[in-house]
Amino acid sequence: MDGKTPDSSNHGSRLIKQTDKVPRPMRLQSILPCIKWIKTYRRTDFVSDGIAAVIVTVMLIPQSLAYAMLAGLPPEVGLYASILPLVAYAIFGTSNTLSVGPVAVASLMTASAIQGLAAQQTVDPVVAAMILALLSGVFLVLLGIFRFGFLANFLSHPVVSGFITASGIIIALSQLKHILGINASGDNAVELLETLYANIGETNMTTLMLGLVALIFLFWSRSNLKKLLIVCTIAEDTAAILSKTAPVIIVILTTAAAYLLELDQNGLALVGEVPAGLPGLSLPTWDMDLWQQLLMPAILISVIGYVESVSVGKTLAAKRRQKIEPNQELIGLGAANVASAVSGGFPVTGGFSRSIVNFDAGAETPAASFYTAMGIALATFAMAGLLAYLPKATLAATIIVAVLGLVDFSILKKCWLFSKSDFTAAFSTVTLTLLVGVELGVMCGVVASIALHLYKTSRPHIAEVGEIEGSEHFRNINRHQVITHTAILSLRVDESLYFANASYLEDEVLSKLEKRKDLKHIILMCTAINEIDISALEVLETINLRLRDLGITFNLSEVKGPVMDTLEKTDFLEHLNGEVFLTQHIAFHAIADRSKEQ
Amino acid sequence: MDGKTPDSSNHGSRLIKQTDKVPRPMRLQSILPCIKWIKTYRRTDFVSDGIAAVIVTVMLIPQSLAYAMLAGLPPEVGLYASILPLVAYAIFGTSNTLSVGPVAVASLMTASAIQGLAAQQTVDPVVAAMILALLSGVFLVLLGIFRFGFLANFLSHPVVSGFITASGIIIALSQLKHILGINASGDNAVELLETLYANIGETNMTTLMLGLVALIFLFWSRSNLKKLLIVCTIAEDTAAILSKTAPVIIVILTTAAAYLLELDQNGLALVGEVPAGLPGLSLPTWDMDLWQQLLMPAILISVIGYVESVSVGKTLAAKRRQKIEPNQELIGLGAANVASAVSGGFPVTGGFSRSIVNFDAGAETPAASFYTAMGIALATFAMAGLLAYLPKATLAATIIVAVLGLVDFSILKKCWLFSKSDFTAAFSTVTLTLLVGVELGVMCGVVASIALHLYKTSRPHIAEVGEIEGSEHFRNINRHQVITHTAILSLRVDESLYFANASYLEDEVLSKLEKRKDLKHIILMCTAINEIDISALEVLETINLRLRDLGITFNLSEVKGPVMDTLEKTDFLEHLNGEVFLTQHIAFHAIADRSKEQ
Repeated sequence: MDGKTPDSSNHGSRLIKQTDKVPRPMRLQSILPCIKWIKTYRRTDFVSDGIAAVIVTVMLIPQSLAYAMLAGLPPEVGLYASILPLVAYAIFGTSNTLSVGPVAVASLMTASAIQGLAAQQTVDPVVAAMILALLSGVFLVLLGIFRFGFLANFLSHPVVSGFITASGIIIALSQLKHILGINASGDNAVELLETLYANIGETNMTTLMLGLVALIFLFWSRSNLKKLLIVCTIAEDTAAILSKTAPVIIVILTTAAAYLLELDQNGLALVGEVPAGLPGLSLPTWDMDLWQQLLMPAILISVIGYVESVSVGKTLAAKRRQKIEPNQELIGLGAANVASAVSGGFPVTGGFSRSIVNFDAGAETPAASFYTAMGIALATFAMAGLLAYLPKATLAATIIVAVLGLVDFSILKKCWLFSKSDFTAAFSTVTLTLLVGVELGVMCGVVASIALHLYKTSRPHIAEVGEIEGSEHFRNINRHQVITHTAILSLRVDESLYFANASYLEDEVLSKLEKRKDLKHIILMCTAINEIDISALEVLETINLRLRDLGITFNLSEVKGPVMDTLEKTDFLEHLNGEVFLTQHIAFHAIADRSKEQ
Repeated sequence: MDGKTPDSSNHGSRLIKQTDKVPRPMRLQSILPCIKWIKTYRRTDFVSDGIAAVIVTVMLIPQSLAYAMLAGLPPEVGLYASILPLVAYAIFGTSNTLSVGPVAVASLMTASAIQGLAAQQTVDPVVAAMILALLSGVFLVLLGIFRFGFLANFLSHPVVSGFITASGIIIALSQLKHILGINASGDNAVELLETLYANIGETNMTTLMLGLVALIFLFWSRSNLKKLLIVCTIAEDTAAILSKTAPVIIVILTTAAAYLLELDQNGLALVGEVPAGLPGLSLPTWDMDLWQQLLMPAILISVIGYVESVSVGKTLAAKRRQKIEPNQELIGLGAANVASAVSGGFPVTGGFSRSIVNFDAGAETPAASFYTAMGIALATFAMAGLLAYLPKATLAATIIVAVLGLVDFSILKKCWLFSKSDFTAAFSTVTLTLLVGVELGVMCGVVASIALHLYKTSRPHIAEVGEIEGSEHFRNINRHQVITHTAILSLRVDESLYFANASYLEDEVLSKLEKRKDLKHIILMCTAINEIDISALEVLETINLRLRDLGITFNLSEVKGPVMDTLEKTDFLEHLNGEVFLTQHIAFHAIADRSKEQ
């Protein structure tokens, strides 16, 4: 191990140091990222942020009402969750353009968590939602402080995509009842379809007509409103943003229709009176049993929300060559949820479509979110009376159109073509979420993807290798034209050696011996062995003893620095019935030459 | 990928085929391994097996009574568990010398599972034990049929060693009450010590004296009985085996003392009347709730038992250059447990000390176990009356001396020196088992070792590499004197790329760019990348796009066959802003030469 520098021997701690060591003067700024943009805030930023804030506010009002309804909460809770949480994220978050607030999937998970309770005890859903937000917030902040953000990586891409697709379907199904004006409920697609089917005879025609009009308008506007605005000589960029305000247009139109035609007389369900003004600040009451029941749902909501939010944040930041800091994002989102909890709101996270509108509308700094929060705060005073006549069917239509954009089964096809284990993870997440519910669906997805990964690493690919003529390079004898030697078996184990595959290695190596009676030397090419744990070391010792008994030498080549460090701590190398070579090339030729001499 | 043979492209299925494809004529023999030895059974085998059987029978009688007492069951249950199970294993098992029957750790786990029930409902412990044996047996047989034996590998060496050490302590503590003649109970060391301390004032002096005599004799005989026998001109081998029968000697002596001196009048607890004769055959009654509660303990008992048993079996087989077949062992042990269940027994597995005696005494085939079963069956008739005067303290002493051999804290020291994650797994298993109990202890150990492994692979070692002068070999620039190029960054990621480390890779690669302003090319050396899943592919695509925007090429070298197969299923290689090179050497020089020309 020539040329080794002493300070690099413990690579693990070196890596951690690299990420953890922040120069002193940056400390405060890394805890309060807002310091950075406040220092350099200019008038032009104010204009850009202000325009973006107006557009996002207009978009957020119907969304916040709708997602509160989806979560099974009174409409004002949606507004409350769109004020303080935005301010908190503007202070602690690192994305300049992420729009935090109520989102579809987190609202569905909130509904599911609250429904899970309802069966056992009578709990005020608003209190339960506040507890969920508080637990989520505290959990996220803790993850951020202890730099445990990597945990979110265990939600693999197939699991997240599959989960969001299935959630989209469940959300759409859960809103159909408002379009039909009937009762239906359930945690999963099966229950929802059953209750919808059972009650479909009671469909209210006024509600259905209004709901269909809203749905058709919203679907139409997704592809055509922008074109129409461009025809009306509105600049393309502006048209693209204005077309996103279609939900507000339909909200105004249907509210007016409901009021003028007194449609509630025909059985149209309305949102009803909403208390005017800002929420009071308070903490949810302590109830050991209730908090315990809500802990697991809160953890799932926060982790899923974080994963979605970070992926949106990363994508938008990259477009402007900016960066977000994943661990600080945990603190930003955590603070937003704590803020939501103390101001009568429910779990929030960064929303995909709203963040894109914010970005496209030109938001430059998190101040845009701050202005949006002020806009919503004003709305709580101005709108309270107007909301009384807002039809629930309209909100349901905006939800359905929004979430159908989440439904994307192509992930299943993509996974199927790519690898069966990715497909299994995605498929089990989709099916379990649809058939059983969101919590079990996502948990089984995570467990399945980890289990499949462990299964694969427990049966590693072991290739017999030979030298490619004219090079010093060794490859699989089954795939390449290579040079081998009758007395030498060169094996490349394509996996770190650890407890799960240690005895598999033993069985495979020893079974290869049976077919090679003239074998005198084994070389284990360790290019892919990144770690050897104590269980694997025991097995290597067993293999070494067994080979010694059979008069076969046991050699290692290309052992990596960190693995060599570990082996040197033990007496394995002293007892090794063979040598450790720097490269497979040197090992093969040294042993081959020696065999010739004998 | 020249020289690739078509049939080797799907390495995964090829490997499975290798292990699964058994030539037709061997099928029956692989299901019934006894056919092999029955065919070739000779008179000399009969003599060797017979002698071994006599010695093991003598050793097994007190052991089976003692372990039944440890499990909280009547003494005859121990004898029943030493008849049919041995016959079943002789038919289905693959080890020639493994001695199946009641063992210490499985008996402790049985006691713990039954105690866990007792609090909630009144269940006959014998019925619960039979259910445990049946569930264990069926579970093991299923694992064997579906070739899921690899699951046992997830019990890492530190977890198993730590668990057995902690179990040994709990077992010894649980038997102290019999030596003292007091009451004590508990699932863990803390509860046992508390109840022992609370009742120590009630110590029965007769019991204590007899218990101490038994303990001292047994401890003494461990090291000195063999020497004494050799002095008495008995051959060394014979002396070694005879010294193992010390428990029988003390059983006979103390039983005689109890009978002659009527020690029960002084408060000495005796085993009491045991029903004479063989057990009837029956299945435990069906009780959904009860069976469900016992399922998890049964799974733990069977997996732990299997791991212990296979490790004993492998060690003994290797000494005679024989082999055991792990998947068939599952069926053998499963059959033994089912046999135990239907004949009024409790969970059994291969015992360490008894198997060594069987081996040393010269057992040649599983027929030895069959003869042992006959010996125990005879004993159920002959011994019933004699056992009435056997003191419980004697049995407790034999258990304590036996299990203290299991206690070995050196695993903690060994792990500490080797790796902190192995130590954490071992330490948490030992502490949780001692403080909380066997089930939680072993489960947390398994979860901890898997979690630590995943954590390590989620933050892989990423080395910058350069070429070692005069070779084609690339190594870490921090450990070796190597040649690098200012425009080229060669990175070796020491881990498969999968969901848990995908975004870590992205962060690390992109952060390395910031320090290298003159960088034009990145080469990812893929020697240690054994798998790329769809989450990692997404990240590679992101890195590729990001590098393209920055005008940096993204090249891969030494991509393994199976990984290349996966990448070729996607359009990643078409969009790759760089090339895939056969070796790192070719990649480095091709790119360096090209940079020179420009």
